[in-house]
Amino acid sequence: MKKHNFSAGPCILPAEVFQKAADAVLNFQGIDLSILEISHRSAEFVAVMEEAQHLALSLLGLSDKGYKALFLQGGASTQFLMAAYNLLENKAGYINTGTWSTKAIKEAKLFGEVVEIASSKDQNFNYIPKDFSVPSGLDYVHCTSNNTIFGTQLKEFPTSEAPLVCDMSSDIFSRALDFSKFGLIYAGAQKNMGPAGATLVIIKESILGKVSRSIPSMLDYSVHTGKESMFNTPPVFSVYVSLLTLQWLQNKGGISAIEKANTEKAELIYSEIDRNPLFTGFVANKEDRSNMNATFTLTDASLQSTFDGLWKEAGINGLNGHRSVGGYRASMYNALPKESVQVLVEAMQQLEKQA
Amino acid sequence: MKKHNFSAGPCILPAEVFQKAADAVLNFQGIDLSILEISHRSAEFVAVMEEAQHLALSLLGLSDKGYKALFLQGGASTQFLMAAYNLLENKAGYINTGTWSTKAIKEAKLFGEVVEIASSKDQNFNYIPKDFSVPSGLDYVHCTSNNTIFGTQLKEFPTSEAPLVCDMSSDIFSRALDFSKFGLIYAGAQKNMGPAGATLVIIKESILGKVSRSIPSMLDYSVHTGKESMFNTPPVFSVYVSLLTLQWLQNKGGISAIEKANTEKAELIYSEIDRNPLFTGFVANKEDRSNMNATFTLTDASLQSTFDGLWKEAGINGLNGHRSVGGYRASMYNALPKESVQVLVEAMQQLEKQA
Repeated sequence: MKKHNFSAGPCILPAEVFQKAADAVLNFQGIDLSILEISHRSAEFVAVMEEAQHLALSLLGLSDKGYKALFLQGGASTQFLMAAYNLLENKAGYINTGTWSTKAIKEAKLFGEVVEIASSKDQNFNYIPKDFSVPSGLDYVHCTSNNTIFGTQLKEFPTSEAPLVCDMSSDIFSRALDFSKFGLIYAGAQKNMGPAGATLVIIKESILGKVSRSIPSMLDYSVHTGKESMFNTPPVFSVYVSLLTLQWLQNKGGISAIEKANTEKAELIYSEIDRNPLFTGFVANKEDRSNMNATFTLTDASLQSTFDGLWKEAGINGLNGHRSVGGYRASMYNALPKESVQVLVEAMQQLEKQA
Repeated sequence: MKKHNFSAGPCILPAEVFQKAADAVLNFQGIDLSILEISHRSAEFVAVMEEAQHLALSLLGLSDKGYKALFLQGGASTQFLMAAYNLLENKAGYINTGTWSTKAIKEAKLFGEVVEIASSKDQNFNYIPKDFSVPSGLDYVHCTSNNTIFGTQLKEFPTSEAPLVCDMSSDIFSRALDFSKFGLIYAGAQKNMGPAGATLVIIKESILGKVSRSIPSMLDYSVHTGKESMFNTPPVFSVYVSLLTLQWLQNKGGISAIEKANTEKAELIYSEIDRNPLFTGFVANKEDRSNMNATFTLTDASLQSTFDGLWKEAGINGLNGHRSVGGYRASMYNALPKESVQVLVEAMQQLEKQA
């Protein structure tokens, strides 16, 4: 029996992607070699890399708009420092909406002055700050589009004359946005794009070359854009599986189609959280709720072992909340079927009947 | 028909590793989840990471000797800068034996003074420099154990009071050495350890904490050792396949057993290069020849298309030399069977008969 996988990341990918990835490990495209043993300079892999870059930009509506797509390594955690290394000359503004923003701020402070433009730390990040003003004279403004741990999501993005930098690790390719508003978008692959081990970087080339410090080659966006993301050996398999996932998304109808499905899944779980007296949502304001990660707790903690038994019995995996929040977290990335959310809702309803 | 894969890296891995990796992509250890969709904090993956670290140290004879094994991202190219970021306070010594040493030197110069202790650049890196002296007062001494592009290999390592740092990307786990001589060993996985996307770092903890600069978290060895290589999401699949490959090596009898097999393969190809009047080796001195990468050219360039036809016809892949050297390169990593080398030797003999 296939599990209903609500893991926060690494997370579920489409079943057809798993099958194609397994096939490629045994014999890639019928060339009698494994995807794991071919040269990254082979014609076959160069074609994979080029198509993945092309498709990422195309799905985001950024083709021919001065952007490059890179598949790097090191996760968003490496981007926290790379963004600052490449872009922070004097002063940058950060919006602090959770654990990942806080970590990004910590790394940026090694490279220049950081202004915390807005923060929801005062209420353990259970809301998205609004009505703040962005000062002028910043090198860039940084935000986190979706907060995996707390279950909040930015619905509006700040406006500024400075380039907008966004960590979209946990909701890229999940909803339609005007991506051309951003100067730099980065995302660990392991939510909506692929397996762990690749990091997508979408960069507007015109924002580069404005800091005076020397940048080590592997941390220099210009080095990677100049080499079409092949400066050194890329994470071949993770890039290939990301390509398979992007192809699946395109065949599904692209971002607007998946956004509709994601909205339906989110409405299903949040309706139940709001209706069922045994559950309460973690996020203070409904408009700040994430369509990717629904965080909730039991109103009566003594029901925990009963509820845990119910959802585990139903074949659900990965529902425990992060230790910073407690309770439960239902991560509903692109590849999670609506049926899995239905199974979870039924477990919640079953608890209500039994309690 | 399975190819005879002489690719320089990413390269051949054991057939049983490909099979187990493909199985895990569909259903990991019978838990009804793919290795690509499980949390890196799951009990299953934590066990993989711990065993991979334990086995790497054990195979190298470094258990309980003050070393930690890390599985990071970014390849040796990232280690070029991390080594200097973490260890270079004033002055470091580098032995320049090829393209990778040259790149390591370039990155280190951003962090302090670099003394080139020895170099074979004067003859396009076709030999290993010897009879040089290591100055005192260095923060560390850096060398490259095997030069993939040129086909040379260090047989003796420099001695110094300073920690010895070694890029072993292309020959780690291929031969017995006293690994406790080294303070830091790093290696991209994609030769003898696994697929691209993971980088093994073996570090003696006592050499850390001696530089005064602030180090970004992801570039700080202490951060990674403190979190047992789980500071952020590791490259899950690449670590798992590395574990499978290390298990295969252990079952083969470990490094001493594989060294014997590697020596036999190298003797087979070098004997033919020396015997066959149509071929000549690139490396000037026989004692500097690499047991991993044999570089050679045709004595008569007009035979190129005939020879290329012969080895391709025999099912050989990845024999073209690097553009810096030209000619041919037979990469014979741990997983390459002796039979594949025999097939290549037969193609070379066939050319002699036809010519």
